Amino acid sequence: MSEKWIAGVDLGGTTTKLAFINLQGNILHKWEIPTDNSNEGLNITKNIADSINEKLAELNYPKTKLVGIGMGAPGPVDYKTGVILNVVNLGWKDNFPLRASLEELTLLPAAVENDANCAALGEMWMGAGEGARNLVCVTLGTGVGGGVISGGSIVQGANGAAGEIGHITVKPFDGAPCNCGKKGCLETVASATGIVRLATTEVAKQESSGKLVELFAKNGKITAKEVFDMARDGDEIAIKVVNEVCFHLGLSLANIANTLNPEKIVLGGGVSKAGEILLKSVNENFSRFAFSAVRNSTELALATLGNDAGVIGAAWLIKDKLKL
Amino acid sequence: MSEKWIAGVDLGGTTTKLAFINLQGNILHKWEIPTDNSNEGLNITKNIADSINEKLAELNYPKTKLVGIGMGAPGPVDYKTGVILNVVNLGWKDNFPLRASLEELTLLPAAVENDANCAALGEMWMGAGEGARNLVCVTLGTGVGGGVISGGSIVQGANGAAGEIGHITVKPFDGAPCNCGKKGCLETVASATGIVRLATTEVAKQESSGKLVELFAKNGKITAKEVFDMARDGDEIAIKVVNEVCFHLGLSLANIANTLNPEKIVLGGGVSKAGEILLKSVNENFSRFAFSAVRNSTELALATLGNDAGVIGAAWLIKDKLKL
Repeated sequence: MSEKWIAGVDLGGTTTKLAFINLQGNILHKWEIPTDNSNEGLNITKNIADSINEKLAELNYPKTKLVGIGMGAPGPVDYKTGVILNVVNLGWKDNFPLRASLEELTLLPAAVENDANCAALGEMWMGAGEGARNLVCVTLGTGVGGGVISGGSIVQGANGAAGEIGHITVKPFDGAPCNCGKKGCLETVASATGIVRLATTEVAKQESSGKLVELFAKNGKITAKEVFDMARDGDEIAIKVVNEVCFHLGLSLANIANTLNPEKIVLGGGVSKAGEILLKSVNENFSRFAFSAVRNSTELALATLGNDAGVIGAAWLIKDKLKL
Repeated sequence: MSEKWIAGVDLGGTTTKLAFINLQGNILHKWEIPTDNSNEGLNITKNIADSINEKLAELNYPKTKLVGIGMGAPGPVDYKTGVILNVVNLGWKDNFPLRASLEELTLLPAAVENDANCAALGEMWMGAGEGARNLVCVTLGTGVGGGVISGGSIVQGANGAAGEIGHITVKPFDGAPCNCGKKGCLETVASATGIVRLATTEVAKQESSGKLVELFAKNGKITAKEVFDMARDGDEIAIKVVNEVCFHLGLSLANIANTLNPEKIVLGGGVSKAGEILLKSVNENFSRFAFSAVRNSTELALATLGNDAGVIGAAWLIKDKLKL
C-alpha cells in the first residue's frame, strides 16, 4: 500500500520549486518549473496543478494518495483566508485568492503562507529547529526575511507583517535607503546586497589596501561570498565589513530574543552559507547584548535545509491543517 | 443566587494587592495587606489565604462561590509548573513552588504568572487591549517590564524570560549600567529612574538653564513627573530629555512591531501617566521606524487600568485555566 504524500510548493519570481513529501517530512521527489508571470499571473496556479498531475502520472502514483498542497509565496499572506495581499513581480492583482485558486485547480485541500514563514516552519520541522516549538528564523538572502514561530505556529501579525526582521532599524541616523522606503534597515547591512554595499564603500576609501581591494580592482565588483572568504583569509577590510554585519545582526537578534526568548534562532539564506565565521561573530555580539536568562537559554544555529526549507515548510502547513 | 468570583492577587515587595473579581472582569472588592518577607517568605502565601477567608467572612460570601486564585509575582515564573524561579526581596529560595503553596493553603485552583505578564493580560481583558488577542504591553515604572501576548496567551519564552523589553539594548556603545549587568538597556533611559538620571545629567551641564535647572537647584533632585510637567510647559532641557526618552522608546517599540506586528502596544506603569505628551512623541518615533504595513496596523495606546491591571490579569489566568 502506498503512503500518503503532500505536495510542497515554493513559489519564486522566476522559478517554482515543487516536491512530494511524506508525512515524516522527507522529500521523495523534487523538481522545478518556470514561473509564468504573464497574463496577470493567471497561469501560475494552473501550471502548478498540471505539473503535479504530470509528475504523478510519470511516477504512476495514485492522486488519491496526495492529501493536500501547501505553498509558500513571496508576499504577505492572510493565512486564514488564503489570500495573498500584494506581491511584486508575479503579475497578480492585489488580494489574489491563492488558496481558492489552488484548491479549484488541484481538487486538493490547500494552504498558503508567506515564503519566509514556510522556510521557518521547514527548519522547525526537519531542520535546525530540532523539535523547538518557539523559534525565530532569519533568512539572509538578496534581502533579509524572517519568520517567528510561537507554540509551533507562525505569528502572523495584525496585517500579516510579523517577521519583518529585515526592516528592524539598525541605523536610525545615517542609514542607507532600503527598498521598503525607510533608511538604515537591517536588510541594508545584513543582506547579500547590503554586504556588497558595505564592502564596496570600504574598498573605495583611499587608505584601503589588501586582497579585497585588489579583487575589486580586478573584477570591478565584489560578492558577499568573497567578503566572507577574504575575512577567513585574514584580509583586514573584509574582517571590518564582516564585523559590522555581525554587530548589527547580533544586536538585533539579541533584542528580538530579549522580547521573545525563543528556544532557537536559525540563520538561513544564501549569506548563512558563510557558516562558522558568521555564526561565531553573530554569537559574540548576541551574548554581549542579550539579557542573562536569555543568553543562557536562546541558542543560535545555522539552517540545515538550504533551498529545501520552503517546500518542506509548505508541506508542514498541510500536515498541521489536516492534523496528520 | 450569588455569582462566581475569582481572587486576583498582585504580589509586591512591600504590599500585596488583592481583589474579588467576577467572570466579566469587574473588580467587586479590593484591598491590600503588607507583604511579610520574614522567615524565608513562608508567611506570604499563608497571609494571602487568611486574608481571603477573612474578607469572605466580612462580606458574608460563601467560599464555594470562589472558583480560584490567580496571582502575579515579581520574578520569572514557570507557568506550567507554577514555580517562581528566582526573586529578589521576597525571601523565597530559588524555585519556590508558589502555585502548590497557594493551592494547599486556599484549597482553591491556583495559577501564577510574572507580574508584568499579569498586567499585560489585565489590559488585554479589560483595558486598552479592547479585544486585541495579539498585543505587547510595556510597563514604565521604577524599571521597564513587558509582556507579549500572542493569540490570547502570554509568550513565556524558553527560560521564562520573554517580555524582557526593558533589557533591549538601545545604547550599544556609551550606555549607562543597568541592574541586569549589561549597559545601555532601554530601562536605563525609559524607566522613571532612567529619566531622572538623564535629567540630572542635563541640568548639571554648565550651559543649562531654565525651570528644570531652577527646580533642581531648589530641591536637590528631580522626579520623572516633573520632567514631563516642565516639558509640557515648554522648558527646553525637559523637552530635550523627553525627546531622548521617546526616541529610544519609539525606536524599540517599532522594532518589536517589525518583528511581531501586534494589534496594539500598550504603555503602562507610573511613567505612562505623563499621558499625551509621552504617547504623541513615542508615536512620532514609532511611525518613523516602523515598516509601512506595521505602521498602518499596529496601534499604540496608553494603559487604562492603572494599578488594577495586575489583579485583573491574575484573575484572567483562572478564567482562562478553568475555561469559564
